[in-house]
Amino acid sequence: MAYSEVDKVAINTIRLLAVDATFKASSGHPGAPMGLAPAAHVLFNRIMTYNPKNANWVNRDRFVLSNGHACMLQYALLHLAGYKMSLDDLKAFRTVDSATPGHPESHDTEGVEVTTGPLGQGFANAVGLAIAERHTAAVFNKPGFDLINNHTYVFLGDGCMMEGVASEAASVAGHLQLGNLIAIYDDNHISIDGDTNCSFTEDVAKRFEAYGWHVVVVDDGDHDLEGIEAAIKKAQAVTDKPSLIKLKTTIGFGSKQQGTHSVHGSALKPDDITQVKIQFGFDPEKTFVVPQEVYDLYHKRSAHGAAREQEWEQLLAKYSQAHPAEAADLKRRLSGQLPEGWEKSLPTYAATDAAVATRKLSETVLTKVEAVVPELLGGSADLTPSTLTRWKAAVDFQPPSLGLGDWSGRYIRYGVREHGMGSIMNGLAAYGTVIPTSGTFLNFVSYAAGAVRLSALSQVRVIWVATHDSIGLGEDGPTHQPIETLAHFRALPNCMVWRPADGNETSAAYYVALTSKHTPSILALSRQNLPQLENSTIAHAIKGGYVVHEAANANITLVSTGSEVGICVDAVKYLKEHHNLTARVVSLPCFEVFDAQSKEYRLSVLPDGIPSLSVEVMSTMGWERYTHEQFGLNRFGASGGYKDVYKKFEFTPEGISKRAVATVEFYKGVSNLRSPVNRAFQQLI
Amino acid sequence: MAYSEVDKVAINTIRLLAVDATFKASSGHPGAPMGLAPAAHVLFNRIMTYNPKNANWVNRDRFVLSNGHACMLQYALLHLAGYKMSLDDLKAFRTVDSATPGHPESHDTEGVEVTTGPLGQGFANAVGLAIAERHTAAVFNKPGFDLINNHTYVFLGDGCMMEGVASEAASVAGHLQLGNLIAIYDDNHISIDGDTNCSFTEDVAKRFEAYGWHVVVVDDGDHDLEGIEAAIKKAQAVTDKPSLIKLKTTIGFGSKQQGTHSVHGSALKPDDITQVKIQFGFDPEKTFVVPQEVYDLYHKRSAHGAAREQEWEQLLAKYSQAHPAEAADLKRRLSGQLPEGWEKSLPTYAATDAAVATRKLSETVLTKVEAVVPELLGGSADLTPSTLTRWKAAVDFQPPSLGLGDWSGRYIRYGVREHGMGSIMNGLAAYGTVIPTSGTFLNFVSYAAGAVRLSALSQVRVIWVATHDSIGLGEDGPTHQPIETLAHFRALPNCMVWRPADGNETSAAYYVALTSKHTPSILALSRQNLPQLENSTIAHAIKGGYVVHEAANANITLVSTGSEVGICVDAVKYLKEHHNLTARVVSLPCFEVFDAQSKEYRLSVLPDGIPSLSVEVMSTMGWERYTHEQFGLNRFGASGGYKDVYKKFEFTPEGISKRAVATVEFYKGVSNLRSPVNRAFQQLI
Ligand SMILES: [Ca+2]
Ligand SMILES: [Ca+2]
Repeated sequence: MAYSEVDKVAINTIRLLAVDATFKASSGHPGAPMGLAPAAHVLFNRIMTYNPKNANWVNRDRFVLSNGHACMLQYALLHLAGYKMSLDDLKAFRTVDSATPGHPESHDTEGVEVTTGPLGQGFANAVGLAIAERHTAAVFNKPGFDLINNHTYVFLGDGCMMEGVASEAASVAGHLQLGNLIAIYDDNHISIDGDTNCSFTEDVAKRFEAYGWHVVVVDDGDHDLEGIEAAIKKAQAVTDKPSLIKLKTTIGFGSKQQGTHSVHGSALKPDDITQVKIQFGFDPEKTFVVPQEVYDLYHKRSAHGAAREQEWEQLLAKYSQAHPAEAADLKRRLSGQLPEGWEKSLPTYAATDAAVATRKLSETVLTKVEAVVPELLGGSADLTPSTLTRWKAAVDFQPPSLGLGDWSGRYIRYGVREHGMGSIMNGLAAYGTVIPTSGTFLNFVSYAAGAVRLSALSQVRVIWVATHDSIGLGEDGPTHQPIETLAHFRALPNCMVWRPADGNETSAAYYVALTSKHTPSILALSRQNLPQLENSTIAHAIKGGYVVHEAANANITLVSTGSEVGICVDAVKYLKEHHNLTARVVSLPCFEVFDAQSKEYRLSVLPDGIPSLSVEVMSTMGWERYTHEQFGLNRFGASGGYKDVYKKFEFTPEGISKRAVATVEFYKGVSNLRSPVNRAFQQLI
Repeated sequence: MAYSEVDKVAINTIRLLAVDATFKASSGHPGAPMGLAPAAHVLFNRIMTYNPKNANWVNRDRFVLSNGHACMLQYALLHLAGYKMSLDDLKAFRTVDSATPGHPESHDTEGVEVTTGPLGQGFANAVGLAIAERHTAAVFNKPGFDLINNHTYVFLGDGCMMEGVASEAASVAGHLQLGNLIAIYDDNHISIDGDTNCSFTEDVAKRFEAYGWHVVVVDDGDHDLEGIEAAIKKAQAVTDKPSLIKLKTTIGFGSKQQGTHSVHGSALKPDDITQVKIQFGFDPEKTFVVPQEVYDLYHKRSAHGAAREQEWEQLLAKYSQAHPAEAADLKRRLSGQLPEGWEKSLPTYAATDAAVATRKLSETVLTKVEAVVPELLGGSADLTPSTLTRWKAAVDFQPPSLGLGDWSGRYIRYGVREHGMGSIMNGLAAYGTVIPTSGTFLNFVSYAAGAVRLSALSQVRVIWVATHDSIGLGEDGPTHQPIETLAHFRALPNCMVWRPADGNETSAAYYVALTSKHTPSILALSRQNLPQLENSTIAHAIKGGYVVHEAANANITLVSTGSEVGICVDAVKYLKEHHNLTARVVSLPCFEVFDAQSKEYRLSVLPDGIPSLSVEVMSTMGWERYTHEQFGLNRFGASGGYKDVYKKFEFTPEGISKRAVATVEFYKGVSNLRSPVNRAFQQLI
């Protein structure tokens, strides 16, 4: 069907909504929405299938705006299509508690698939969404039941193109031959520093071809609607490669400043707005105008999507009869609930069981749980033999043509691409049918900090299996030994950092991670073997903190995590024998979860009247919240056998005891010593 | 000169030193050294110029081992060449306090240019070293005085190739046409997960060509020494592009397990070692063997380098006569000392001066200081108009052919590549003649966490101008508003995090950052205007913390940083008027520096007997070390005008007062209230 005048009107409507909203907010980015409006219009009117009345329909096409600063484009489209996005919402752009924040946030705004803005992330999320589609299709589609077959479309700009996270994800997508992924690159030759010529002169098309992508160029993205549509259809026709459409556009199209950096990050001036509106045939006196014909056009497309969903629901009903188990599994997955009784598969241990590294215990959990939690989708950033993330029966997720696995495989070889992995996991989780869990060394989760932050902000369930969690990794040395890492992620809101001390705590960490639908987790796991503790149970550990060793009339509470808990238990004996001091021991595997317990419970673990000492072989930052004194490592580690390294830094029963004695001494004169759990006021949460 | 038997012996000596050291340590990576020994031998014997007796000679060729796990290769070379690296050092590989840690650390080991191991970093460091050479040459070379003309060589493996930080740096290097940079890619088709076919199937040569690199392929990197040499010379001949030599090698060459993942990360088995040694013509009963002819060969090359340095010193002597000012400047820069009296250029302010954003105050510092500190090399990750990092007179560092600047230019357009920028800055600082300072939003310093960590570990002077430092950035919203960022970097050892509150504090932050030769700094700067404080002086602020507002018989101390200090000053009045409470105010712009002050001084700032409350609009983590109670933001922010956002979260005089009252109340009954500065024992530092 040819494009007509109403399409032009629609495109200009979108442009002017962005102009009006940024002007009203005195803030925001009109340039990219004005440049991308034609492509967005084609995509939302001729290509994508979606139903605004059910934004969560699993087989909808996904749209990601990786250049999230262009969010007025997305908000305008959501409004026109009939999502929960009123004209008043658009008018409230960038004001406190609106549905239209300065960058798109998936948990705030229906129809926004993933939270974007930090550049490169959305593109990598889209790779995750496309992987999830391929996998879900392979698992659930049956002959005659092409249940899952959506595409993922992503817009990205020059900034995303320059970010390493996008490079990593692009290489992964090319390797995986994700023919269901179509990226539209807004090639407008402008970034914040001006013409991209000043820093970005690479040959993008050639680079993407090198990654194994199919590349199409559209020369006039400002006007050539037929060309845009043809390029997307060409991309759809290539099913064994992801496609990049290099779309040449003019930033701020229509503005007097079009094609320059001036229209990127601030509202147009009043006289410019007037001339743009006149140029586009709109009344310059009016704002936030949507002609009825434009609503009609979009609502027609939405009706088309609703009809498609209707057909799909009928297909699903038939599928439910033909394949009842699969249908039930799909519905359960989409609800976010794990299978009834899955937790019975979690391994438990007695104190008499052998000492085992928590990374190994994690492998046991995965191996036992994967069969009952089929949505687990594992992986590692090229550290599989070290992170032990691949369960025994795993098949690799690979394009069948490589002969290394298939689309239904549940183990992703991410390569040495931690940031890409983190961001892809966010996309996987956002799809709705899988729970991603992937491994690297704890120290290198920091490479993915940008992605982890967005996991937390966008409230997705992703699990990092972060092994080699301390100086206990030994010989690899300071370049690999985390010091600041736990403090970093403990300070991140809505992120659970677990550092289990033994087998039951490892099971507990997985229990909470898997059942927390809206919170990512980082499991910090040891390379070295750790003993099974007395009094450690799943029930205790899921409280985030509990008493490992109780003692009446204790002189001190030792509070620790992971590999140091066992050393603290040994220190109890040392303190009694050498100093006649009685010590209690508390394990605090997860601050975030412990903080959520009742004050009464927390005080029972960390009571008033007893001085306390934290013991953890890394930065002491944050421990002052729980203990009176802190024994940690506020310096970089050392390369050597791990026992030698622990000895060098005095993380031994003797070294702990020395500091415990000093602590007891220091608080001797203090009457009514309060537990740090007591606070003058509550924080806003 | 043709290669002969002794070259083979030398190559096998290097291989066997790696075999013996990893076997003795029961740990480490023999595979890459065995595969890369031929290329390393050619490079160190036929190509590079260096003097082991003066490892710091500025015009030496630089060598970077980006695949740092192959460090036994580098240690063996340093030993053979005659650096401070004994056979006993090699025998102490990977033991505590040795000169041979598990990954190369520049501050531990002479001859190691940069600290590597975390993948991708060394490659990006090399880009920085090459930029520094280009710039230093442009500034100091004169007709007849080709003083600076060294090359930078970098080895990298598949892992580095996959990391986004390397992609970013490669794109920068191509744009900048760094013909002095030669990268040798160890294309051995193996990474930890096995054959790279499982995750890394892109066309690397094509990708690098797309970045603007010159690419050469060497098909037999195991034997073809002539081919390796020819490839490097071909690369040297291309002076307007960086070169990538794609070198096909066999990992673990000579081992029974060669060409497989088994030789990557653990020592060879005894029987394998025996057969390798026999195969190479070595006595299988002996370990750590270096034939005299091998020493002779390497020492001859070292003597060649020493002679070259001799000639260079003579050239420098003549240069000193012809260009005394430039010579003195070069020598001063190499000493790490700033010019006498430079600090007089730091701006100072009176309390009556206008309110200004600290990002703007930072611009003023840079503008005033750049003329007297010519080694300042600025830049931004495509946020120049926001971070205000480009001083007025700046010229861009660009290849002259682009017409946008020249090699002597002192402002780098990094593009949207924060991680690459951080890692390039580490290389710039390591070169020895420049002090890099670059800008992005504080929230996106996290993208570069891997690089910042290595700045701290390797003790280099780099300065991050990290603007838009809080919810005070307003409308951009939670995706851009740091919450955990300061806690993260405050927990990182040897990293100064500054959050100045006004003009004098901003000058103080720069003073300490620029004079701390072995510590990186992050300057967290506001988007919004901040008032100039009473009692703020450079002398006060360089202590990291000081009293902004003193009061006799105070009921409470408010402790704050940056944009909240001024609000605390306003809260003093509110507390007096509404609650008849007397408050002191302390500004604590840098924890790391404050911690280094005497206990007496710290207690004068945070005295016993007065309850204290911290006020900072981000995670409270870490504040318990300084204050009794904490008012912060342990959740994500909000998009809106910054005053509305501050109000939403109650960071107002009223909101602070409410919590101050609760704090005073809470500690009323406590006799002899101790300052948190008092500790039972000292941490190991
Ligand atoms: Ca652009
Ligand atoms: Ca390799």
